[in-house]
Amino acid sequence: MSTPFESEVLKANAKYASTYKHSGLECPPLKKAVLITCMDCRLDPKSAYGFDLGEVTTIRNAGASGRDAERSALLVTHVLGAEEVLLIKHTRCGLLGVPSEVVQDIMKKNLGLTESKDVDNFEVLTFHDLEASTREEVEYLRNHPFWRSHIRVTGWIHDTDTGVLKKIVE
Amino acid sequence: MSTPFESEVLKANAKYASTYKHSGLECPPLKKAVLITCMDCRLDPKSAYGFDLGEVTTIRNAGASGRDAERSALLVTHVLGAEEVLLIKHTRCGLLGVPSEVVQDIMKKNLGLTESKDVDNFEVLTFHDLEASTREEVEYLRNHPFWRSHIRVTGWIHDTDTGVLKKIVE
Repeated sequence: MSTPFESEVLKANAKYASTYKHSGLECPPLKKAVLITCMDCRLDPKSAYGFDLGEVTTIRNAGASGRDAERSALLVTHVLGAEEVLLIKHTRCGLLGVPSEVVQDIMKKNLGLTESKDVDNFEVLTFHDLEASTREEVEYLRNHPFWRSHIRVTGWIHDTDTGVLKKIVE
Repeated sequence: MSTPFESEVLKANAKYASTYKHSGLECPPLKKAVLITCMDCRLDPKSAYGFDLGEVTTIRNAGASGRDAERSALLVTHVLGAEEVLLIKHTRCGLLGVPSEVVQDIMKKNLGLTESKDVDNFEVLTFHDLEASTREEVEYLRNHPFWRSHIRVTGWIHDTDTGVLKKIVE
């Protein structure tokens, strides 16, 4: 059984596979570069930043969190030869300016709970200042005890209303 | 100062932004759907599965791990109205068939350490059977104490040599 969305995905994928020309590509990213960006539906890193299949590793999570991406970022830089990381947050992010308690209250309501210490301890990783948060997430990776000191990490903000990307942490 | 990669990104982005027509899109994904897939450079979910900007949330990490994606998947289903999740692993994944100790040894060598309990405790989340691991990661989310029981999670495998996507966990 497929949902309507799954059927759409399979139809689109059949078309994609029918002209696929990337057999044989290997695991390490050819550009030796990594993006960490938000899971947000308004972002399409490959088109917005212009790379081809096989060239760049892309990590995505809620808010483009460096700490949430830590396992993946360590793996790609230690094992797959990546040498630079672009951490890209974006305007109008769903985690911007929202207190964690608001999110936790929604979760409790959805789960039919009036109280839950477990949900209260759930780390939402919201933030209140887009630029400051970008800087903090970059610093988190740079200062991670397992970070290789020569791996470059920079911080960027993508405007979802203009498509424009700007570097804010050199 | 920009690296050659950063300069390429900025040049491509200027072109992208010059024809950008998606101003005003909001945060909740229009298709109410979420992909969890690998950070691997050989995957391009948007093209491979055929959706447009604003339609689908995309979470990516090393190995398409459900447990690593848990924070993001809980947020998008509890707060942003997503109703179905496709967890997509892929062939020839860098975490497939590699013992965690091999990865940890590479990390220690890179860091100039002969011994490190901290690195030995680093959770790589490798796996040895692609289908079994897909099933386990799907089950992890379904059984998460904060998971909303009506949110559908299915498991899929993408072949990086053919571009073909197949559902393996209904």
